[in-house]
Amino acid sequence: MDEAINLEDKLGQFDETWSPRTVTTFNGHDIMVAKFLGEFVWHSHADTDDLFLVLKGAVDIRLRDRTVTLKAGELFVVPKGVEHRPYAKEEAHVLLIEPRGTPNTGDPATAAGRKVI
Amino acid sequence: MDEAINLEDKLGQFDETWSPRTVTTFNGHDIMVAKFLGEFVWHSHADTDDLFLVLKGAVDIRLRDRTVTLKAGELFVVPKGVEHRPYAKEEAHVLLIEPRGTPNTGDPATAAGRKVI
Repeated sequence: MDEAINLEDKLGQFDETWSPRTVTTFNGHDIMVAKFLGEFVWHSHADTDDLFLVLKGAVDIRLRDRTVTLKAGELFVVPKGVEHRPYAKEEAHVLLIEPRGTPNTGDPATAAGRKVI
Repeated sequence: MDEAINLEDKLGQFDETWSPRTVTTFNGHDIMVAKFLGEFVWHSHADTDDLFLVLKGAVDIRLRDRTVTLKAGELFVVPKGVEHRPYAKEEAHVLLIEPRGTPNTGDPATAAGRKVI
């Protein structure tokens, strides 16, 4: 069983952006932390919602019809199948939850390898 | 579709302790915020892990063999079936995730009614 997981300590262990690290698991989902900077790709997940909780900084979740801006302490769930494109003007720290093995780009061919820390 | 959800704004909407409020849903789970103060009951969930992310203050997750102390920015997952008893010496704010309808005490007869805000 894991002990207390300090999210900022985990985020201090890597520099890479758009490369989520799994810090623990929950009901078949990966609980992940990631660093966002700049613009990600447009993508969607056919089989899962996508949860973003901003821990530090600010993130825009661009949707086809609008943009949802998240500051630290704010979360947003992109429903499954909805196209989205995260963007961070400055480096932001984010908690993500997705079923184990979900490709972060929506496509296994372009996804970041899943890493556990 | 929900917009950005500010967790502290949601926590400002109620005073009751040990009474989680659902702020959104994710893959059949309730994403909840709760205020903890004092000692909760010993309980376990046969069918689900139990995720605690402390947003403000500190929480002890008492287990039968030890205690895991969580400060703000720290999370812990109690695996399904494991008995636990949360405790907060001073009021703490916590993000919780459980499958929709999970009784917070592990027993529908004693559980807080699930409320959405």
